[in-house]
Amino acid sequence: VVSETGNLETLIEGVLRGEWRATARAISIVEDSRPGRVELLARLYPAGRNGRVCGITGPSGAGKSTLVDRLASHYRAEDERVGILCVDPTSPFSGGALLGDRIRMNEIVLDPGVFIRSMATRGSRGGLGKAAREVISIVEATGTSQVLVETVGVGQIELDIAETADTVVVVLVPESGDGIQAMKAGLMEIGDVFVVNKADRDGAEGLRVEIESVLALRTDREWSPPVLTTIASEGSGIVELAHAIHAHRSWLETSGEGEQRRRQRIMSYVKEIVQDALAAGLWEEGGYRRKLEESLPSILAGDRDPFSVAEDILAASGMLESLNRDAH
Amino acid sequence: VVSETGNLETLIEGVLRGEWRATARAISIVEDSRPGRVELLARLYPAGRNGRVCGITGPSGAGKSTLVDRLASHYRAEDERVGILCVDPTSPFSGGALLGDRIRMNEIVLDPGVFIRSMATRGSRGGLGKAAREVISIVEATGTSQVLVETVGVGQIELDIAETADTVVVVLVPESGDGIQAMKAGLMEIGDVFVVNKADRDGAEGLRVEIESVLALRTDREWSPPVLTTIASEGSGIVELAHAIHAHRSWLETSGEGEQRRRQRIMSYVKEIVQDALAAGLWEEGGYRRKLEESLPSILAGDRDPFSVAEDILAASGMLESLNRDAH
Repeated sequence: VVSETGNLETLIEGVLRGEWRATARAISIVEDSRPGRVELLARLYPAGRNGRVCGITGPSGAGKSTLVDRLASHYRAEDERVGILCVDPTSPFSGGALLGDRIRMNEIVLDPGVFIRSMATRGSRGGLGKAAREVISIVEATGTSQVLVETVGVGQIELDIAETADTVVVVLVPESGDGIQAMKAGLMEIGDVFVVNKADRDGAEGLRVEIESVLALRTDREWSPPVLTTIASEGSGIVELAHAIHAHRSWLETSGEGEQRRRQRIMSYVKEIVQDALAAGLWEEGGYRRKLEESLPSILAGDRDPFSVAEDILAASGMLESLNRDAH
Repeated sequence: VVSETGNLETLIEGVLRGEWRATARAISIVEDSRPGRVELLARLYPAGRNGRVCGITGPSGAGKSTLVDRLASHYRAEDERVGILCVDPTSPFSGGALLGDRIRMNEIVLDPGVFIRSMATRGSRGGLGKAAREVISIVEATGTSQVLVETVGVGQIELDIAETADTVVVVLVPESGDGIQAMKAGLMEIGDVFVVNKADRDGAEGLRVEIESVLALRTDREWSPPVLTTIASEGSGIVELAHAIHAHRSWLETSGEGEQRRRQRIMSYVKEIVQDALAAGLWEEGGYRRKLEESLPSILAGDRDPFSVAEDILAASGMLESLNRDAH
């Protein structure tokens, strides 16, 4: 019953006033692609430009949830509104989240200044990164100044989130091969701040030194990522982490890098909207789906190749006369 | 110097005759997007329809490389040509592969009936799956009947490869939490054949039973994935694995599922070619890049939202009058 314009208006106003119930409903509409999706995203986007997004990533078992909860408590003590988005790797088959082992701190769950939302992957390529960006933009529209995005595991989704976040915190623990794994997964390149959590364990100092040596090889940016140590379960090192995140944000603004990233992000977003709409239009009924389906037998028989069929469709669309066979 | 048509013809003929040197050069042209890329892919595609692609995936340390080598030896003993494609997770920063720990069997590397190629991720979203499909189509065009695609690690790339492969073999080892990890990563859903490798270790039988219990919950397909045990390092269980892969392929053909998958794959391929070409055309000089860039200040200032800018561009393109705000 949100399909009527009146109710959509009420919902948008509720989100803009920072009401979590309205926020949760708006997110569901967007996630489920229900009527009003585009209108919601378009109307809420301009309100969300002042939030700051911090991605927290690292291997499972690194203590990310605890660290995020402590960080949220820290921001709450400074009277900031906090959004926590947990992006879980799940089964493309069942569609449901399999991570039942997440235990959030009670005070965080019950705090009315904190909004928590979990997102599950849907098995669609590139889908989760896009979905996460949309959810983040809604949470930002509520006036939430601190958005913490926690990703579980290592993989493509971390790289997607890294593009969305202002600051990426990579959490590692002194365990066998953690540093090596992080390097393999490309985490060393996306981190703006590094945390050796569970720093009371053996090997913590060794891991810290290892990370710093690898970071010394990074010559891509002016920002030198700090390597901090925390014991999240005891709350130790959290203030320093919040300061490091703040320092990185200040650097983003003074260096112009933040502006540059926002421009890039907007460009990608517009491109994605245009391309998705065109793709949807191309293959819907009345589009070129039939032309494509009719060509299948000839491709299956080896008489045609997918490129010549694509060229036919491109020519028919009037958008492009042919594939650039020389430099495509 | 392959940009001249004459040399491209020679290269295509070489690939079609099954020459590995020509194959390697053709792959490099495609991977590096050099002139002739589209022509190569288009011309070689029809020749590659008879190869069979088997994806081998699982967590690192599961012994996939050894298993792939043994499987390749098995096929070689039956006088089949074998292609091995190793898809490695690497650093989007350095662009190079970090996995130096792969040790291939000497006999495989030196066998002229075997073609081996490694591919590194390039940090681009969805890029590796597409690149792997292209490389596979070139290897298939050489008349290679058995293409083994080995993916390292767990993540989105495995799901991409699963869509490309005829048969997906998931390799696990009896180690703490391997079954749970596989479930989290969605491996249980993509496997057509399951292998408990290093089956001489403690816990192998337990893992086998665990996998079978989970598979019993899978009601999505008519095919019931077998769970095999191997000791790849000793060559034990390899013949049974080859038989299971063959049985799955036979099922694909008799059930019509294979035909259905090929149709889906061709449709996706054509769609991707069309969409990529349109996207490239949209944002190149002379396209709508300037229109997009000129709108950035108004979006940054909060005066416009990305959707209204996207609508302007769509309207200007003449392809679509507006976003479907109700049901997009």
